[in-house]
Amino acid sequence: MKRYEALANSIADGIRSGQIPIGSRLPSLRQIIAQRGVSQSTVFRAYYLLEEWGLIRAEERAGYFVTPGAAVKQVPSHHDMPLADSTKVDISDLVFSVLDAAKHPNVVPLGSAFPSPLLFPSARLLKSLTRGTRALSPWSTVVDLPPGNDHLRRQIALRYVATGVSIPPEEIVVTNGALEALNLCLMAVTRPGDVVAVESPGFYAALQAIERLDLRAVEIPVHPVTGLDLDALAAALDKHPIRACWFMTNFQNPTGVTLSDEKKKSLVDMLAARDVPLIEDDVYQELHFSRDRPLPAKAFDGNGLVMHCSSFSKTLAPGYRIGWTSAGRFADRVQRLKLMTTLSASTPAQAGIADYLEHGGFDRHLRKLHAAMQTQRAAMEAALRRYLPREVRWVTPSGGYFLWLQLPDAVDAMALHRLAIGRGISIAPGPIFSAKHAFQNCVRINFGHPWSVKIDGAIRALAEILEDPAVHASI
Amino acid sequence: MKRYEALANSIADGIRSGQIPIGSRLPSLRQIIAQRGVSQSTVFRAYYLLEEWGLIRAEERAGYFVTPGAAVKQVPSHHDMPLADSTKVDISDLVFSVLDAAKHPNVVPLGSAFPSPLLFPSARLLKSLTRGTRALSPWSTVVDLPPGNDHLRRQIALRYVATGVSIPPEEIVVTNGALEALNLCLMAVTRPGDVVAVESPGFYAALQAIERLDLRAVEIPVHPVTGLDLDALAAALDKHPIRACWFMTNFQNPTGVTLSDEKKKSLVDMLAARDVPLIEDDVYQELHFSRDRPLPAKAFDGNGLVMHCSSFSKTLAPGYRIGWTSAGRFADRVQRLKLMTTLSASTPAQAGIADYLEHGGFDRHLRKLHAAMQTQRAAMEAALRRYLPREVRWVTPSGGYFLWLQLPDAVDAMALHRLAIGRGISIAPGPIFSAKHAFQNCVRINFGHPWSVKIDGAIRALAEILEDPAVHASI
Repeated sequence: MKRYEALANSIADGIRSGQIPIGSRLPSLRQIIAQRGVSQSTVFRAYYLLEEWGLIRAEERAGYFVTPGAAVKQVPSHHDMPLADSTKVDISDLVFSVLDAAKHPNVVPLGSAFPSPLLFPSARLLKSLTRGTRALSPWSTVVDLPPGNDHLRRQIALRYVATGVSIPPEEIVVTNGALEALNLCLMAVTRPGDVVAVESPGFYAALQAIERLDLRAVEIPVHPVTGLDLDALAAALDKHPIRACWFMTNFQNPTGVTLSDEKKKSLVDMLAARDVPLIEDDVYQELHFSRDRPLPAKAFDGNGLVMHCSSFSKTLAPGYRIGWTSAGRFADRVQRLKLMTTLSASTPAQAGIADYLEHGGFDRHLRKLHAAMQTQRAAMEAALRRYLPREVRWVTPSGGYFLWLQLPDAVDAMALHRLAIGRGISIAPGPIFSAKHAFQNCVRINFGHPWSVKIDGAIRALAEILEDPAVHASI
Repeated sequence: MKRYEALANSIADGIRSGQIPIGSRLPSLRQIIAQRGVSQSTVFRAYYLLEEWGLIRAEERAGYFVTPGAAVKQVPSHHDMPLADSTKVDISDLVFSVLDAAKHPNVVPLGSAFPSPLLFPSARLLKSLTRGTRALSPWSTVVDLPPGNDHLRRQIALRYVATGVSIPPEEIVVTNGALEALNLCLMAVTRPGDVVAVESPGFYAALQAIERLDLRAVEIPVHPVTGLDLDALAAALDKHPIRACWFMTNFQNPTGVTLSDEKKKSLVDMLAARDVPLIEDDVYQELHFSRDRPLPAKAFDGNGLVMHCSSFSKTLAPGYRIGWTSAGRFADRVQRLKLMTTLSASTPAQAGIADYLEHGGFDRHLRKLHAAMQTQRAAMEAALRRYLPREVRWVTPSGGYFLWLQLPDAVDAMALHRLAIGRGISIAPGPIFSAKHAFQNCVRINFGHPWSVKIDGAIRALAEILEDPAVHASI
């Protein structure tokens, strides 16, 4: 373990044990250098790590403070959750009822899965769309069949290289958004009746895919601070004939938690030892607020077992529907499934994004996007602290645009959702993130939209609704 | 039966019985009006119909002649085919080996499933792409989620109206090409293990979808002149628990045959009586050479059982990947499956095609395309007659861009394919169009490319290869 990691761990222990209280200010750089005899850069890195874990938060010109979320308790259902049996999934009706209710454009989109499209460079992108499409050979419709547009695949490979991961362009299959990539990967490695490990709470699309393909789910707990429970995963692998895992390693949906590099490596090693493929959903990787982009688990994969899936839908061009997978040893199979189901991704969209990646200033745009997200996160957290009861807890995420709120135990998030929709506000209630419809007192809210009086009013309204006896579960 | 149909039938009987020999000229308009006492328009219509059936062909300024294909014999495997048992399908490796071999851009694409992209108005379309995308609201990424872009769906509904079919835009779900529409429809009405009726010979993607979804196929014979064998279908429906049918009603792939309106109506009625959904693949409908666009079976559907699938990939914009389905009573289910698997079609492509349909002159482009295809068909048939042995037979199709050649019985189309690829020529061998790998002496060739010395040379080369003893099956 590196020095800064050791320092971060020791401070984290202090926070978790209560020795360093919630809301307290951490020692200044100078103090801690003097106390521990470490270099300035070690302290910097350790604080970065603690911030990434959601345990501390920088406040401008005032130093680092322990976040309210640091005291987050384990999600209740984890405590006494016996090692899950595999579950036949029946989630789609629930998910669709929530999504449909939120579709009206006047609804305040706290339940949305997307950031505001106003944060994207649509004019610059249109220029690339026109230029990239004009430059296409008419024969691109034949040549760009899976695995996809060569120019785009080279640009994607270059972005991997910038994170320090080497992926040959030949391994990359372009898809209609990450959602198709994930679905094709799942189809490539399972057959009806197979068991798949997913996160709990986890992205509902994984549950929907499992339901659609007649698979069974084993839910592995995710802790909002430390992430996926690897011990629980090991036990599940022993107990069940798990054919594949579908996990989010960075800024997980809905908790926002990121696995440490160490845990990513352990995860990859554990699965390699059993020859179980990992479908890695990494759509929020580029939305990191700390300096460096987090690594994917794919970075530690020496066996071609990790199928890394991502897209430009959360960072650049939601409507273009361009995603991809680096599918390791399954790349050929994924490519064939793509040919059989949707043939190829839209060529103008592929060419436009390739042109934008080369000439449009993607990194500059991302820096602006990160800054906007952090401002919005701060505004959202301030409003939550101002309006919501003190018992509401969350972990400050260091990327993405979701907050996973733990409301008082008695709250029924589905009732909250229904009452909120009645007042023109969408939220994403906890039960849609679990095959067992657990997390009944949790909700995911979205801070991906520029702060506004309307959003502020929506948080205040949620606080009022929480006082309604109708949102308390009859337990 | 209308007067012109009666006339067409009586001439067809004469041709089939041999009274009117192959290659002979039909009576002139004046003669036949005098002989039969019918009006000029009746003769016109009858000749149109006979042309559509592939029995006669107009030669400029010379009149109508009986086509070589009029003598086409029933495809051998139909004769003695006992009512098929349902088949577990294993076709993908074969299909992919054929497609992969043909992917090199220098290969003469006689085996291609696409027309030449040079026949499409790419500059005009780019203008619509830019204009349509610029006009999009940034919120289109939310609003255009399935069922899809409203403007585009209204334009598609208008094209239905122009054929005399009324489809409410709400029933239309926009997809990534017709291939996704067909796959989603199949998923919407089946579960693993179910039995699906397909055509034989039929489009290999139907077989691939059945294989991928763990379904079973029952093959219904298609006659190159009269089309789908409805009696065989009725018998199969009695014998097997068929959950869905996947058929092409117009310019069927690979035979090119179009069902008469009467047969379309019988088909719809037969399936309605048993409550079996019809997935209607109608991607060649717009490529009709006679005056009127043929009706889809959907036009006769009073029960919402027909899922009509089509796209702009064969007529306008292959790379854009925009298709749709009018899925009748299954529209909601299809829409949900779309949301779960690929979320939505690319918004710029949707907006671009909507703008083009409204302002780009689609019908004018189609007329030019029809003229080009007919010229190419004539050139291809002339080359086939010039170079290939007299025993090779085909039916002249009245739309689309495929010829289905029946080679002498002893020819092994797979061997022909391998030898042809070695000389830089792709063909689509018969066995990829059947779950049982039948049609071993048939090939599909594509006349969707502007005629060229290279294509002429390829037909001559095929004739040479046919003389190679290695292409003769060891029977």
